[in-house]
Amino acid sequence: MRSKIILFGDSITEESFNNGGWGASLANHFSRMVDVMVRGYSGYNTRWILKVLEKVFPVESSTPLAVTIFFGANDACLVDRYGGFQHVPINEYKQNLISIITLLKKRWPTTVVVLITPPPIDEEGRLRNPYGKNPSGLPERTNEAAGAYAKECIAVADECGVSVVDLWSRMQQFPKWEKSFLRDGLHLTAKGNKIVFEEVVEKLKKEGLSVETLPVDLPLFSDIDPQNPLKAFRT
Amino acid sequence: MRSKIILFGDSITEESFNNGGWGASLANHFSRMVDVMVRGYSGYNTRWILKVLEKVFPVESSTPLAVTIFFGANDACLVDRYGGFQHVPINEYKQNLISIITLLKKRWPTTVVVLITPPPIDEEGRLRNPYGKNPSGLPERTNEAAGAYAKECIAVADECGVSVVDLWSRMQQFPKWEKSFLRDGLHLTAKGNKIVFEEVVEKLKKEGLSVETLPVDLPLFSDIDPQNPLKAFRT
Repeated sequence: MRSKIILFGDSITEESFNNGGWGASLANHFSRMVDVMVRGYSGYNTRWILKVLEKVFPVESSTPLAVTIFFGANDACLVDRYGGFQHVPINEYKQNLISIITLLKKRWPTTVVVLITPPPIDEEGRLRNPYGKNPSGLPERTNEAAGAYAKECIAVADECGVSVVDLWSRMQQFPKWEKSFLRDGLHLTAKGNKIVFEEVVEKLKKEGLSVETLPVDLPLFSDIDPQNPLKAFRT
Repeated sequence: MRSKIILFGDSITEESFNNGGWGASLANHFSRMVDVMVRGYSGYNTRWILKVLEKVFPVESSTPLAVTIFFGANDACLVDRYGGFQHVPINEYKQNLISIITLLKKRWPTTVVVLITPPPIDEEGRLRNPYGKNPSGLPERTNEAAGAYAKECIAVADECGVSVVDLWSRMQQFPKWEKSFLRDGLHLTAKGNKIVFEEVVEKLKKEGLSVETLPVDLPLFSDIDPQNPLKAFRT
């Protein structure tokens, strides 16, 4: 059976197979090596997903090579704004991430876990693209709040000894990150997807999972002898 | 466990998760419903893949909802040209397709099988993009040969009672199909990928597999009550 990498998260994971998405890029990158499976749940925070964790990762499923965990963008919604029902207090967010990692590591000790922090928020972009009406004129997410949750996410990675992509900081290293990487102040543009893809590939590589090390499923065309092609298929 | 659709074929399947690829589009289309798994093997013909069919579809793997079978582009290489070692005689191609379908249907009687014919060939595009040197100045594939194999593929679908996408005919219904759908006379452009995606979605829908009928994994965000979000997660 081919091994698999599971992408676990919210809408930024769910839509990662859209045109040029980071999930599709990962699947293409690990073509012939790994199945990339999406477990993205739009709008979800860590509190909601914890309630159904056993459904997302059924006991009978086989050990994944790696799982990316990409939550926090919804937890970090401000409690007194229109997205307040998605808000999760920052301490609970931290504990929830630890609970998720603990369950995964208990079930699959060898599985590589890569945390991804929430992306930065372009507040102006959020105001232009609210979910429904927003008469308050205030964004439901702020970059400052996302940054606080990102910091906790990094602390969890440190505590649990797993890798982390600090997306919040990484994106803000580039000029004009607000519009370049975020299409509505939160979700990713093609360039934003590219950064996530590259960062995840790099973290996986550091954990020993790369196209250089993973076995290829069946002989590559370049390894098939034109003079005697069937030789490659003798078992 | 979420159900799965397997895409089985040659390079046009293997690269289907590239930017805008038909495989990634299917995964995105069936997001939250189905895992789309790629079993594409660049350069392979039906003779080679038959030798390793049990490795591609291990006995212990669970029943897929559907399998697309997309071979013939390599089988149809002309025997006396530089791609001749990939050539499979047309009668053997037909028998090989039948053998593949027979094995799948024996193992998984409920699985929907969708055959896809080879695409048409833009011979001028092939001459501009040979694999390595081609001093003969003749293309290794012709549209006529691809058409003959496509016809056999359709005959197999009819014989076996499975769906078929007649990609060879469908693409040629459009003006300038040669450059519009094929980037090197054989492999798909973004527009070519879009046609394959749309045709496969339509065939699956006719077989009862559509976003309208397939169950969604976990409550959709739109079904979660902002006044009492946790209600959606009570089991």
